[in-house]
Amino acid sequence: MTEIRRLHSGKRISRAVIHNDIVYLAGIIALQKHGESVAEQTRDVLALVDRLLAEAGTDKTRMLTATIWLADMRRAEEFNLVWDEWLPDGAAPARATVEGRLTSPEHAVKIAVTAALP
Amino acid sequence: MTEIRRLHSGKRISRAVIHNDIVYLAGIIALQKHGESVAEQTRDVLALVDRLLAEAGTDKTRMLTATIWLADMRRAEEFNLVWDEWLPDGAAPARATVEGRLTSPEHAVKIAVTAALP
Amino acid sequence: MTEIRRLHSGKRISRAVIHNDIVYLAGIIALQKHGESVAEQTRDVLALVDRLLAEAGTDKTRMLTATIWLADMRRAEEFNLVWDEWLPDGAAPARATVEGRLTSPEHAVKIAVTAALP
Repeated sequence: MTEIRRLHSGKRISRAVIHNDIVYLAGIIALQKHGESVAEQTRDVLALVDRLLAEAGTDKTRMLTATIWLADMRRAEEFNLVWDEWLPDGAAPARATVEGRLTSPEHAVKIAVTAALP
Repeated sequence: MTEIRRLHSGKRISRAVIHNDIVYLAGIIALQKHGESVAEQTRDVLALVDRLLAEAGTDKTRMLTATIWLADMRRAEEFNLVWDEWLPDGAAPARATVEGRLTSPEHAVKIAVTAALP
Repeated sequence: MTEIRRLHSGKRISRAVIHNDIVYLAGIIALQKHGESVAEQTRDVLALVDRLLAEAGTDKTRMLTATIWLADMRRAEEFNLVWDEWLPDGAAPARATVEGRLTSPEHAVKIAVTAALP
């Protein structure tokens, strides 16, 4: 039976699940969202993504997909500025960005990433 | 050529697609949605997920990801109560929950799951 | 280290990412959307999907999943008519269709596909 590894696994959600040589991250939101701008939330989310990928043994240069939900699509440019800064050259994932209200009205950004392990 | 197996495959959609050792479920909605509460629909959807995973030869302890769309995010707690009851300890998938209007206004919940075969 | 291949890879997004024997397409939208109907946009998007799958070395008979976002769910039938025509018998993917506002208000349809290589 192939092994499944779960990181930061709670009753309801695991922040990351590893199977074969792929890690699947949950939909990641900012921890400190109160009063934060879209840019600040995006930086927080991407820092969490970096940390989870590192724990799984990989990094953002090996992303396969990124699904991005923005609570307000008119803020996409604000999101993209932080994204572009964060993403190394030649590492762009297959990305889908859509609008969608998130769990709490204070949340502006949620990102789900899959990445290959080395 | 690697084999692809499709379960409950119609003209438009397959309820499950199996490739290598992963099963991908379609976005599953309740069959009997008329007048059902969010909790009832969630129970219906999760029972269908159980049945499809069983047909594919696996079960909910081997889920990798779950993408959950709720027609009204304010009902998330109602959804989560049923989810928490259904999910075995130590089996939480990488989960992303977002709001999104579904095919019919009567639908409150849609879930897409991926799971590893044994 | 397993190889990752990216097609039409820009600073922000790759149109397709190939890893092991799966290709992950980005969320694909119509190129010529101005004034186009839902049916016309759908045809454009599906033609792009065909082209990207071909570049990756596979085709629509080997799709695993399709996530479909419609800006207005009331247009689902218009979408489905084109989808049904395009999809070969016996090739239906695990499909999830939800409503979601897209990057530009002119966009009616976005599709993200995964497919197995031969």
